[in-house]
This record gives sequence, C-alpha cells and structure tokens, in this order.
Amino acid sequence: MASSTNGDKPQENMLWGGRFTGGLDPLMVTYNESIHFDRIIYAQDIRGSIAYARANKNIGILTSDEFAAIEKGFKQVHQEWESNTFTIKPGVDEDIHTANERRLGEIIGTGIAGKLHTGRSRNDQVATGMRLWLRDQLRLLDEHLTSFLRVLTSRARAEISALMPGYTHLQRAQPIRWSHWLLSYGTSFQADLERLRQLIPRVNRSPLGAGALVGNPFNIDRAAIAKELGFDNLIPNSMTAVSDRDFILETLQWATMLMTHVSRFSEDLIIYSTAEFGFVRLADAYSTGSSLMPQKKNPDSLELLRGKSGRVFGTMAGLMMSVKGLPSTYNKDLQESWETMLDGVKTTSDSIQIATGVLSTLTIFPEKMLAALSPDMLATDLADYLVRKGVPFRETHHISGRVVALAEKESVPMDKLSVKQLQEVDSRFGDDVKSCFDYEASINKRTVVGGTSEKSVIEQIETLEKMLQ
Amino acid sequence: MASSTNGDKPQENMLWGGRFTGGLDPLMVTYNESIHFDRIIYAQDIRGSIAYARANKNIGILTSDEFAAIEKGFKQVHQEWESNTFTIKPGVDEDIHTANERRLGEIIGTGIAGKLHTGRSRNDQVATGMRLWLRDQLRLLDEHLTSFLRVLTSRARAEISALMPGYTHLQRAQPIRWSHWLLSYGTSFQADLERLRQLIPRVNRSPLGAGALVGNPFNIDRAAIAKELGFDNLIPNSMTAVSDRDFILETLQWATMLMTHVSRFSEDLIIYSTAEFGFVRLADAYSTGSSLMPQKKNPDSLELLRGKSGRVFGTMAGLMMSVKGLPSTYNKDLQESWETMLDGVKTTSDSIQIATGVLSTLTIFPEKMLAALSPDMLATDLADYLVRKGVPFRETHHISGRVVALAEKESVPMDKLSVKQLQEVDSRFGDDVKSCFDYEASINKRTVVGGTSEKSVIEQIETLEKMLQ
Amino acid sequence: MASSTNGDKPQENMLWGGRFTGGLDPLMVTYNESIHFDRIIYAQDIRGSIAYARANKNIGILTSDEFAAIEKGFKQVHQEWESNTFTIKPGVDEDIHTANERRLGEIIGTGIAGKLHTGRSRNDQVATGMRLWLRDQLRLLDEHLTSFLRVLTSRARAEISALMPGYTHLQRAQPIRWSHWLLSYGTSFQADLERLRQLIPRVNRSPLGAGALVGNPFNIDRAAIAKELGFDNLIPNSMTAVSDRDFILETLQWATMLMTHVSRFSEDLIIYSTAEFGFVRLADAYSTGSSLMPQKKNPDSLELLRGKSGRVFGTMAGLMMSVKGLPSTYNKDLQESWETMLDGVKTTSDSIQIATGVLSTLTIFPEKMLAALSPDMLATDLADYLVRKGVPFRETHHISGRVVALAEKESVPMDKLSVKQLQEVDSRFGDDVKSCFDYEASINKRTVVGGTSEKSVIEQIETLEKMLQ
Amino acid sequence: MASSTNGDKPQENMLWGGRFTGGLDPLMVTYNESIHFDRIIYAQDIRGSIAYARANKNIGILTSDEFAAIEKGFKQVHQEWESNTFTIKPGVDEDIHTANERRLGEIIGTGIAGKLHTGRSRNDQVATGMRLWLRDQLRLLDEHLTSFLRVLTSRARAEISALMPGYTHLQRAQPIRWSHWLLSYGTSFQADLERLRQLIPRVNRSPLGAGALVGNPFNIDRAAIAKELGFDNLIPNSMTAVSDRDFILETLQWATMLMTHVSRFSEDLIIYSTAEFGFVRLADAYSTGSSLMPQKKNPDSLELLRGKSGRVFGTMAGLMMSVKGLPSTYNKDLQESWETMLDGVKTTSDSIQIATGVLSTLTIFPEKMLAALSPDMLATDLADYLVRKGVPFRETHHISGRVVALAEKESVPMDKLSVKQLQEVDSRFGDDVKSCFDYEASINKRTVVGGTSEKSVIEQIETLEKMLQ
Repeated sequence: MASSTNGDKPQENMLWGGRFTGGLDPLMVTYNESIHFDRIIYAQDIRGSIAYARANKNIGILTSDEFAAIEKGFKQVHQEWESNTFTIKPGVDEDIHTANERRLGEIIGTGIAGKLHTGRSRNDQVATGMRLWLRDQLRLLDEHLTSFLRVLTSRARAEISALMPGYTHLQRAQPIRWSHWLLSYGTSFQADLERLRQLIPRVNRSPLGAGALVGNPFNIDRAAIAKELGFDNLIPNSMTAVSDRDFILETLQWATMLMTHVSRFSEDLIIYSTAEFGFVRLADAYSTGSSLMPQKKNPDSLELLRGKSGRVFGTMAGLMMSVKGLPSTYNKDLQESWETMLDGVKTTSDSIQIATGVLSTLTIFPEKMLAALSPDMLATDLADYLVRKGVPFRETHHISGRVVALAEKESVPMDKLSVKQLQEVDSRFGDDVKSCFDYEASINKRTVVGGTSEKSVIEQIETLEKMLQ
Repeated sequence: MASSTNGDKPQENMLWGGRFTGGLDPLMVTYNESIHFDRIIYAQDIRGSIAYARANKNIGILTSDEFAAIEKGFKQVHQEWESNTFTIKPGVDEDIHTANERRLGEIIGTGIAGKLHTGRSRNDQVATGMRLWLRDQLRLLDEHLTSFLRVLTSRARAEISALMPGYTHLQRAQPIRWSHWLLSYGTSFQADLERLRQLIPRVNRSPLGAGALVGNPFNIDRAAIAKELGFDNLIPNSMTAVSDRDFILETLQWATMLMTHVSRFSEDLIIYSTAEFGFVRLADAYSTGSSLMPQKKNPDSLELLRGKSGRVFGTMAGLMMSVKGLPSTYNKDLQESWETMLDGVKTTSDSIQIATGVLSTLTIFPEKMLAALSPDMLATDLADYLVRKGVPFRETHHISGRVVALAEKESVPMDKLSVKQLQEVDSRFGDDVKSCFDYEASINKRTVVGGTSEKSVIEQIETLEKMLQ
Repeated sequence: MASSTNGDKPQENMLWGGRFTGGLDPLMVTYNESIHFDRIIYAQDIRGSIAYARANKNIGILTSDEFAAIEKGFKQVHQEWESNTFTIKPGVDEDIHTANERRLGEIIGTGIAGKLHTGRSRNDQVATGMRLWLRDQLRLLDEHLTSFLRVLTSRARAEISALMPGYTHLQRAQPIRWSHWLLSYGTSFQADLERLRQLIPRVNRSPLGAGALVGNPFNIDRAAIAKELGFDNLIPNSMTAVSDRDFILETLQWATMLMTHVSRFSEDLIIYSTAEFGFVRLADAYSTGSSLMPQKKNPDSLELLRGKSGRVFGTMAGLMMSVKGLPSTYNKDLQESWETMLDGVKTTSDSIQIATGVLSTLTIFPEKMLAALSPDMLATDLADYLVRKGVPFRETHHISGRVVALAEKESVPMDKLSVKQLQEVDSRFGDDVKSCFDYEASINKRTVVGGTSEKSVIEQIETLEKMLQ
Repeated sequence: MASSTNGDKPQENMLWGGRFTGGLDPLMVTYNESIHFDRIIYAQDIRGSIAYARANKNIGILTSDEFAAIEKGFKQVHQEWESNTFTIKPGVDEDIHTANERRLGEIIGTGIAGKLHTGRSRNDQVATGMRLWLRDQLRLLDEHLTSFLRVLTSRARAEISALMPGYTHLQRAQPIRWSHWLLSYGTSFQADLERLRQLIPRVNRSPLGAGALVGNPFNIDRAAIAKELGFDNLIPNSMTAVSDRDFILETLQWATMLMTHVSRFSEDLIIYSTAEFGFVRLADAYSTGSSLMPQKKNPDSLELLRGKSGRVFGTMAGLMMSVKGLPSTYNKDLQESWETMLDGVKTTSDSIQIATGVLSTLTIFPEKMLAALSPDMLATDLADYLVRKGVPFRETHHISGRVVALAEKESVPMDKLSVKQLQEVDSRFGDDVKSCFDYEASINKRTVVGGTSEKSVIEQIETLEKMLQ
C-alpha cells in the first residue's frame, strides 16, 4: 500500500508538484524514444525480421503462406522507406522495430504480423540490427582507409627525392625524405587497418534467437538465421547476446586510436604549412579565408580533423562510462550506445575521406624543405665518422658537440669550418671529413630496414602496398 | 614553386588520385559548415549585431540612418526566423553569421549591410553569440534545478515519518528516515546549484570588440555593448576573448558533476524498485513494459538518466581533448565546442526535468521499508549502550559483535535474545538494554547537526529551502 | 641577441624572480627523471643492449673481445640488480639506460662501454625495453585470465542445477541457471582473451635499430637483433619505431574493456550479496567489517574491483590525451606513457587475480535463489503456451498480461489461479496449462544454442574450455 | 545453507581451485590496504582525533584526564612520524587511522585509547583527514599560481616594447606585443585563480560527527570540532558527509582546466622555440640534449608540462567513472579517490612551479619576433584605411585582398607597392596610405579595452596585479 498515491498515477492533490501534471509526460516520451536515430537501420531490421520469420516457418511457428505474406509485406515496407513515403506515427512508433511491425500489420493484417515476434524480444532484435549496420559501415571504413593509404604510397613513391628536416621534440634533428615522413604515418594507419580487420568478425556475430535473455523457446535454428544474414558466427550465451555493446565500444576504441593518427598527421601539416616552415600548402578546397583579414589562408580542414579526434574520443569515453558498472543483461542505459555509435562512425568515416582529399591535393615545396636543412643536423654523421675510425661513440659525441659549439662561436655553419679548425678540435679528423656534410649521402647511409635510404623507403612502400591490394 | 601542382588546384594528371576530383569537395563543405547547428543562436547573433552597430554609430563608423536601417532590417530577419520563413542558402550560408548578414544585405542593400562587420571578426562574433545563448540556458537550468529541489524538500517534509534501512556497501547498516536519504541527494544538488551560480558570471562576459585577435581598431566602446547585451563584464584580453572556450568546458564539467548525482540517485531508486527491495514504484509515465515478458515493469526513465550521465561526461571529455594542446587564439578545432555544448546542455536540462517528474510521481511503500529493518542494524546502539556505562568503545564493539554471533548461532533475531543471554555475553548489560531495540528511538538519538533525528532533518529541509526562494 | 639574458643562464638581476634562483632547478630534475619507475626494466634494458652489442660486433663496430667484455660486464650489472646491490646515483642516473651504461663503464672501462651506444639512441632503446617488458606482462595476463575462466567453467559445470532469477532492468524477468549467469561473463572474458592474443604480436615488434629517428647508419641487422630478443617482427619505419606508443594505448584500451567486465561482474555479485537478494556470500578473505557497526560484512573486494575499473580507464584516457595532437616522432610528452603503463598493467593483473580469488571462494545459496523465482516470471511461457495453439504472439502477450493483472487483483500468485479463472481470461487455455508453471521445465525449454537448457549450458562450457587448454 | 562450503572459509576440496589456497589472500591484503599512500595525512588524522576527543570530553564521553592522556599520547605519535621513527606494522596497520590508534594504545593503554573512536566511524574520519589535507594543498596551489602570475606580469611590463606576429590558425594574422601574448594566458590563469578561491570553501567543510552514515549518537558539537580544525562550515547531511568525494572531483576538474592552459602555453612556446620560429630559447635548466645528436637542445620541460596535462585529465576521468553510478553512502570504490587526489594535486603543483621556472628564465629574441612580421599582416589596416574614407568594410576587405594578390603577383612585399599601383586597385587610396604600413602604429591603434596598444596592455597588467596582492 503506497503512502501517498493510489496506484501508479500521481494524485491530483499530491504535495510535491513539479513539472508533471497528468498521466503522461511528453518530455519522457521524447527522452525515451529512439525512432529519430534508429530509423537508420530500417533495412537491417527488415532483413533480420525476414530471416527470423523464415526460421520460424522452418520450425512450424509460421505456415509457408504466413511467411510469404510477411516477406511480401516487408518488401513493401522497405520500398516505402526507400521511396521516402514511410510515415512515422508520432508517439506510437517509438523505435524502428515498432514502426516496421506496425506498418507490416497494416499491410498484411495483424493476425499474421502479430506472429512475427514469436519467441523474439526487442533485446535480440535491436542488437541484430545494430550489428548488421555496423558491420557494413566497418567494411566501408576499410575501403576509405585503403584509399587513403593508396594516395599515401603513391605520393611516397613519386616524391621520394624530396629531402626535408626530420624533427624530434619539434627541433631539427636529422635529414629525412618527405616520403619517409609519409610512411611513418603509413605505418600507423596500416596498424589501424590490421586492427579493423580483426574487429569486424567480432562485430559480425549473431545475437538473434537469444530472446529477452534466456534464449528462444522453440528451438529456432540460430545458425541458419546467422547464415542468411551473413554473420560469421553466433554469440554463445543468450544473456551476453542481448546486453553486449562491446562491439560498439571496441569500434569506438579503434576509431579513437585511428583519429589520434589523423590528429598527429594534421598537427604536422598545420605546422609545415605555417609561414615559418612553409613546406606545404593546402588546396583551396581544404582551406578558408578570414572574415577580417584579407591575406589569410587557414588550414581549416586539418584543424577540423584534429578537433574531431577529441570528439570521437568523447563518444568512446562517454559510452564506456555508461556501460561500466551496469548489472547483467539489458538495461535501458544501453540505448546510449546508439547515438555514440552513429556519431563516432560518421565522424571517423568523414575524417578519413577528408584526410584523403587533403593529402591528394596538397602542394609540397621541396626547395623550402631543402633550405630548412642545416649543417648542424649532420653532427651525428660527424660523430659517426670518428666511430668508423675506432673512437668510442660516447667520445665522438662529445667531440662533435665541440664542433657544433665552435661553429656557433665562429658564427659560421658547421660545414664551413676548415679541416684545420676541425683538427684542432680533434686530430683524428682527416681531409675526407668534408664528405660528412652531404644531406643526401647522410640519408642514404641509413640502409637499415625502416631507414631513410631510397632502397629502405621503396621497401616500405612495397610492403604497405601488399596490404592494399 | 610546387613540386607537382600549379597553384593550389590539383592538376588533372596528379598521380595520387583518391576521392577528390575537382576544385571543390562537397564533403568538405558539409564537414566545415556549422549552419545546421549554429542557427540555434539566430536571435543572439542579431542582438549582438544590433548592439555592435549601435556602438559603431556612436563612434561615427555608421550614420544614424545607416544604423536605423540595420536595426530595422534585422527586425525583419528576426521575424523571418521566428515565423519559420527564413530560407538558408545551401553552400552559401555556411554559418548563422553569414546567413543573417547575407539576408540583411538583401533587405537593406549591401552598401549599408557591408558596413556592419567593420572592425569585427567572426571570432568575436561567434563567441558573443555562444555566450549569450549559454547564459540564458544556464539561467533556465537554475530554474529546473530549483524545481527539482522544491519537490525533494516537499517530499522530505511530508514523508518524514517513513523509516528505512540506511546502507553502506549496499549492506544494511543503520536505520534512517526516507527523508534523510532524500536530503543526502539534496545536499549534493544544492552544491550543484551553488556552483552554477558561480559559473554563470564567468560565462556572461563579453568578447565583443576583440576583433580577430588584436582588438577593435576604432576604439569601440566595449563596455557599452556589454551593457546593452546584459553581460556582467568584459574579457580583459582580446586574444583570450576570441579563443576561450573554457566557459563551455566549465559548463560541461559542472553538468558532468551534476549528472553523477543524477546517476547515483537513479541507481539507488533502481535498486529500491526491485522486487527484492520493493521500497518504491515508479509512475507508469516513467516506466515501460517488455515486448516479450507481459509481467515486466521497467524503470526505463531512471536507467536513461543513469546512462545519459555517461553521455554528458563524454561531451566534456571529448571537448577537453580537442582543446588541450592547441596553440594560441582561434583554431578551427574550436568549432567542436558547438555540438558538445548543445548536446551537453540539452541532455542535462532534459535529465533534471525527467528526474523531477520521476520524483514527483514516485510511490513509496513505507511498510516495506520498515519491514526491511532488522535488529542487527541496532548492534551499534547496543555498543553505545555500554559506552554510556563507561566501557571503551573498542571493547563494546567486540561485545556487540559477540551478541550478533550469538543471535546467528541461536537463529533468533538479536532483539529476541533474553537479557540473561545478553548478560552471559557481558555482565554489564542491564534490564534496560531492551530499550536499544527500537528503530525510531535509534534514529531520533542522532540529534547532531545533519543527523537522522526528526529535528535534524527538519533543520536540513529549512536550510535547503532558503536557497530555493 | 636576447633581450634580457646573456646566454641561457638567467641573470642574477632578472626582473621576474619566481622560484628559480640558479643554474639548476632541483624540482626540474625530479620532474624530468624516470629512474624511479623505469628501473623496473633493468633486465630488459640489459638484454636489449647485449643483443645490440652482438649485432654491432657482427658488423665490425665492436671486436669480439669488446663484445665479450660488454656481455660479461652486463652480467655483473644484472647480478647487482638481482641481488639488490645496485646503487643508483642520484642526479646522475636519470633513467635506467644511463644507470646501466654508467655502471658498465665502471666495471669494464668507458673505453669499451662508450662504444655500446654507437648508432643507437635512447629513443629506440627505451621503446625496446618497454615492449619487451610489456610483452612478458601480457603473457602473464593471459595466464591469469585463463585461470579465472577455468574457475568459472568449473563452477558452471558443478553448479549447473542451481536455478535463479534472470534479470533485465534489474527486474525479475525469466528463470535461468546460475551457470548461465556465470557463462554470460565467461563469454565476455573469452572475447578479452581473444583480443589479448591479437594484441600481443602488435606489442612484440622490434624498434631497435631505428636510432633517434632515421635508422641505424651502419646497416645493423635489425632482424637478427629482433630474433635474439624474441620479437615477432620489426616496426617497418624508423620514425614510427621511436615514437609509437600505440602498443601501450592499445593495451590500456584492452584493459579498460576487460575491467568493464570485471566491474559489471562485481556489480551483480554486490547486489546478489545484499540482505535483500541473499544469493551469495563472500569468503572472509574478501570481505571486511565495519569500524563502527559490529554486524557488518562488506564486499570490499568487489567494490575495489568495480572502483579500479575507473582507474584503468583513467590511465587510458589520460595517455590518449597526452598523445593526441603531438607532432611527429619523439616528444618528451611520451614519457607519460611509462607510469600509465605500469599502473594500468598492475591494476589489471591484480584485479583479475582478486576476481579469481573471489569467485573461487564464493558461497552460493541455491535455496535462496530458488525462492526468489516467482510465478509471474513464467508469464512468457504462458504466452508461448497459446502460441503453440496457434494464437499470434502479440495476442498471447496481451492475454498473459491480463492473467498477470488478474493474479495481482486476486492477490494470489499466478500459478494459484484456477484453470477456470484462466479460461475466463481466454477460453483457449486447457487443463494442461498448469504445466507452464514449472521453473526447471521453462529453463530446459530453451534448448537453442546459447540458451538456458542443461544441454545448451554444457555446450557453452565445452566451447569455452577448448580455448583454455 | 551454502551449496559448496561450510561457513565462509573455502573448503579444501572445493572444485574450482584457482589462486586462492587458504584463509587469507596476501594479494587481497595489499589490494585493500591504503597505508602506503594515506600515511601522508598522519598529522591531519591526529589533529582530527584530538579535536574529536576534545569534543567527546565536553559531552562527558571522556574525562579530562582521559582526554589529556590522548592528547599527550598523540603528540608522541606525531613526533614519531616527524622524526621518521614510526614503525608501520605490516598486515595490521592497513590504514593511517588504524596505525595511529594502534600506536596510541601502545603508549597510553587501550583502556583509554579504546574510547577515542566512540561515536565515530572510519567513514567520517577519513573524509575529515582528506579534506584537511586537500584544503592546505589548495592554499599552497594558490600561492604557486600567484607566483607564476607575478612573473608573468613582471615580464609583460618589462618587455612591453617587444613586437611579434599574432597568429590565428597558426598563420600569421596581425601584429601584437609579446606582452599581449603573455597576458592572454594571464587572463586564463586568472580565471583559474578565481575558481580556486571559490573551490576551497567547498573542500573546507567538516564531515566529522557524521558517524558511519547516520550521525553521532551522543549529540557531539560538530560546529566546535569544525572550528578547532579551521573548517569554514559543516556538511549538512550525515550520509553525504561520509560518501561525498565531489570535493576531490571538483579539485581534479579545476586542475584539468588549469592544465589545459599550461598545455596550450607550452605548445606555443615549443613552437616559438623551433629553429623556424626562433622567438624564444629555454634556459639550460629546463632543456635537455640528445643521446645521439650532439647539436640538439630540446624543450623537455615544456613537453612534460604538455604531457602531464593529459595525466591530470586521466585522474579526473578515472575517478569520475569510479564514482558515477555508485549507490548511496560509502562504498569501497571511493578508496580510489585517494591516489587520484594525491597524483592529481602533486602533478599540478609541480607543473605550476616548473612553468614558473621556465617563464622566469626564458630568453626572448625581440629582433627575430620583429623580423617575422610581414607587411601582409597589415592588410586589415589597409582595409580599415578605406573604411575611414567611408567605404563599406565588406568592400574594403575585397580591395585589400586584391592588393595582397597584386603584391604576390609582383613578388614584392605589400608595402613596397607604389601608391600608383595601389590606386590602380582602388582610386580611393591616397598618398597617406603608406602610413598603414607601420607595425607599431597598427598595434597602438587597438586602444580598445583588452587591445594591443601600450595603454591597453598596461591596463591589463594593472588589473591582474590587483588580484595578486
């Protein structure tokens, strides 16, 4: 017996007032309903329902005629969505599943349509639709990422002769090839592609037949349904099947990692496109001007890419928090997985494509790159020169450091010091020491696997290309 | 001189292909534009522009007639938005500022409209619009939160006689009043209200007059503009003025904290509404049934509240990541602040209102609460009994523990042990020991400030009510 | 020429004061140094250095004697660490690499020790040590997770006859087996194990030979080094090799996902161990009492597990933010990866082991589980009964709902309604309807793959066990 | 009756094995105990206990002699901690509270010491100690932040004549003063200081007297205790008092916001210290060299500052997740707040001090800053020139854009175009147009509040200084 109300409808004379005044709260209706976003899977929901109905026919829950009616009816529903003539009933069609079944009933009668849901729950139904949709999206993401990497390897091959400073701590460090820089990101995105291909089979598992939580009571053939829907496998426990949203979390984790690569790639290019660096210029299509300053050309596309990296992380972090600590099986909190999934996938997909556009239209300025190389970047080569004469590296490092200091003191570039001056620092410098001061030679000395030499860079390109075929 | 292109338009014969094929990338257009979300501040943008134009009139940039035309024109633009007749030009109106000024020019001619933006940049313009909008939203949030707390205090006052178990570690600990539980959340939400009222003045500061980054060159009267727009203060540095998004981050931090309270409040009520606890029942308006199980009534509203707590955190975390590590002033990454702001504010606002609805229509079952009290929850009172006789607490704690064990061993509730049995545990138990086994007396012993006694609870209510006037 | 200082040392008469007063800032020394945490990889650093020296011997950088001296010297250094006699020199040994090489020089002389670092950088050295260490830790995590799953499958097999309520929305839904609940978590942890085994090869890739960023200049045999150190593969680009911390991020993402499973598992058991549910009791070893309330027994271990899930997420989120948006190659920001890696791995490893301890010592109360089953949980079976008679499910769902309402109105459990009463609701109920009200029969009807029937549960156990061999 | 064990100790013949083998799990002991980190509040715990004992004396729970003994005993305990002679008993002293009381009992006897905890719980005790500690730390942070801002304002005042490019989108935008750049961060850190001063009073509230959750049963004078301990106020509800960790969350939110400012400040200076920009150079104390490249000087301090921004965010995000969704009052999950608090506070405190050191020893190169100004940065001034002649800004913006294009086409800096050339673009350019091309004049035109003019910058400095007194 309740203390203050009769039944569950609040009394009119209740003391606590507040916003709620009657039997229905319109805000709760919109807070609860999902049709405005889950309609995106109208086709997957229909495919899933047809496969489910066929399996029910096979175990005698539906007659062949009933199944035929359902299939035919759904074709019409599908057609209505495709032709944009489906009318959502506000307040009734709270989700896509309700909408589709409601419409099916109008077309073929509720006598048959009412049998569709036998042994099924919205819990396994929604998980099925989401997985089908996401699987397809991830396959598209594979294509987009492959396209990006194709542009990257093409440029790396074509522009292999462009030399530029390699930076650590954003300080000029040693000379590299522009292509080597490209391939450093190539390596990271290649790992993203590898992870994506491991992820897809985990997404592509069938929950259908799990019911609300205990499994279908009519011994439906889950494997046959899964096969019809192109799933790789079944989720082996009915409770997990209905409540698992790890397939979304893992997708968002994957996307977050990829977006950190997009962000770092953008950060580099933003810096390289400053007046001070001047190595690259974005195509007009990926830049914008200023409403106040007529001379400005801003790398907006790259900044958006960098900014949206945070956004994708936010979807992942938010959903992780929503899921963490929930009790078993389905809780409505899981509805939050929907919008984070949609936003995370779209943002990532758009971003890869924008990055592809930026990279495929970027202008590089090899002369400016070359001009940014400075002789002190060869200080390590100078140290290595003495190493080859048997001096311990730790000693050569100090000697080379003294040469750098001498050049600074004399206010000349290091390569303009005379052999005599060098020999005053260390007598083991010979006349051939001047050969150290050659950027391309320095770059081509790194013949090791993964190094900057032309051969090593070509190897990297070829390895990466194999994954893109 | 570029290596591979002439100018910034990619050559047709470029090697790297990819998705981009011409001078324009339609995806980039939509990736970049903000009109689909920033149109929400059409009114704030117009207000800001009128105030800005008036200030420009006052320093002679505009004549009185020009200003009058601008003001009149904007009234029409505003009217078009209000009446839903404003037509956004796709691909032209990339943001609300462009749209409003474009339309103004059509109405009053670009000769005058073209003077509007004098000395202003989109950078200070957008920040002005966002701050005006957010300030108003936060004032609404103050109202919503106040309403929630009013419901809470009303119930706390009306239902003060309902006794229930207090839990720690979700284990029954000591008896409390239902009102005391309510007020424990009241205290947390009261702090949210306090924080909100400190936050609003930081949001409500004017960036207008900061230009793109260096400040207006015509010595415009920033203070007068701020006053017209109802700002509390000016942002004291033009570079900060255009690039600061801390007002959004701080709002989202505030909202995240509030939502953890909403989440914990929901968690408790979800547990209290299980069959096993049975203390409360949600109104139908805030519950839903199951598509498979006819007997189910699920606390969907509370689960959504709990889930959306993660979502709001996600907006904060994502934007924090986007902003962190940016260089000075405006970078396009900051556009990400828009959608996180809108989503975070709406979700929080809706959630407070739903929580208010849930609480104002909730049925409580005082008999079930009372029935869940068990005598072992008075073990501390038993220890305190001996403390009053001078036994050190550490010893009384052990003695009481032995009584608990004895009751378990004898399979009787602790209050059914005889005085003799108690005295066998410790001879200092007197005949009056049985007075310990009274739940309400135990509760009323906590007369300390913030305690469970009726007096203490009334005090809490009165203190809280003062803040809500 | 600087405005205010001569050289880089601040002048004594500088205007701005502050905390810094001389040529050295002791706080900066500790803020910068890593020896207090990176000493954990002393053995991996030594192994890496020996392999590197051997490769340098093979290309003639070191003589055989020099290599032998280095190897012998390092054996002593290693021995000193093992026997806890290694003395770290404060302010000198800023990291483990410096410490090991410094000590080696003391033992074998700096003439030879000074050759060790030839062609190497701390950048590739530190990445090598971290990857070796983490690879080994992940293999241990595989063992711990396998142990946990062995306990889980053992209990699932042994306790298959215990029946309990299955919950959705924390409301009683349909009857299940305790083993089925166990296996729902088994499925999630199995996916964690699968992901772990895909992750390890990505961690176990060799960066050694990448130098500071451009690759080794002496054509060192990276593959041979990698083989000696047990790496699966090489990182194919020298810039990525030194700056990639994705192997840590991915580990922390993996750990975060696993910990959400640990958290949800704990949440269920915390609820199941309340007085109100009473399904399980933790062993004393995993519980604690209260300092104030003698009767309390709190599931502290489970609460810590649940709380530490947030902590692991925090390490991931923090590092993600640190890494996001960095420019290319090594930046000191990456040092932050160290402590997050150590904390994340240790917390996860401990947590799996604690969860194993909790589960292996947990007491279950099958009678209480059984007693918590209520006839209304069979409402779906009642609906299914009519489905088998050809009534559309949507109709049977309503009929069953009316039966639930009737039972509530009559204040009797649903299974105590007479056949006549049922027939008044719907005439198609026959005398055999009473067979619906059998919990075990209901459970065993779910013979579908992944269902609750004994056969289905045994299948799940056997599948899982295969992965644990 | 349990299915598989007798009592709570696992049977020897239990089926499921695993790591646990006896009545105690050593890993659980360390997983649970907090003494290794909470010992940091030994003094606060003692202060709190003395205040609590005094209040108990005042209500007759303790005699004056007992209180005197307790106070004296605690002085000795305190002295032992101070002199580093306190011996922690492993496995017994699980936390600082246990350790202190255990030792007190050894000194004054458990007869009296055993009375200390009367009416108190570890729940209110630990919250008291944490709040006292954190309050003091936050006051120190106020001092550190004030010191940083003093250095900043001193430099801003002294170096006001240094001119440099202002950037938006990292592209050169308009000329500014170096001091204006400094003050843009000054404005952000000033807001941090303002927020800190609002936060401290929320931290500095007393939970003591709340007991485990229901309040002290002996009507202890909470206000008197709070006054003795220097608290500003009481927490008004006993359940909130023991379980609220918002004071830590809010601190970490505050710290995260501040650290984003530290990160952005560092990002700018890292870029400004590249060879390509060359505006600043770090003191040696805040830089490091390279183990491989002799010429390198890396801004490690700034990179660490930037990286640690992520770390502090991680502590906040992790704790937020741990707390979110917990049920009421104390749950052991809250122990996670300890290490996040300690790490977050220490990292923030160190970082502010390092930032102060970096800023107070930084060398700036005004000539290089000046050299980076280019005439196209005055394109807005050129547009403004025509605005002053009555041309609408939108038109002047286009005209100025054509001038920029002309200068590019002619390959001359914009200020080297002849007046005639300018007039060919637009006839309204007069002979006085050349006055536009003066960087300092441009800067000084921004006389608006918050602008770049000398007067505006001095105003900013003075306003900020007022807050630092």
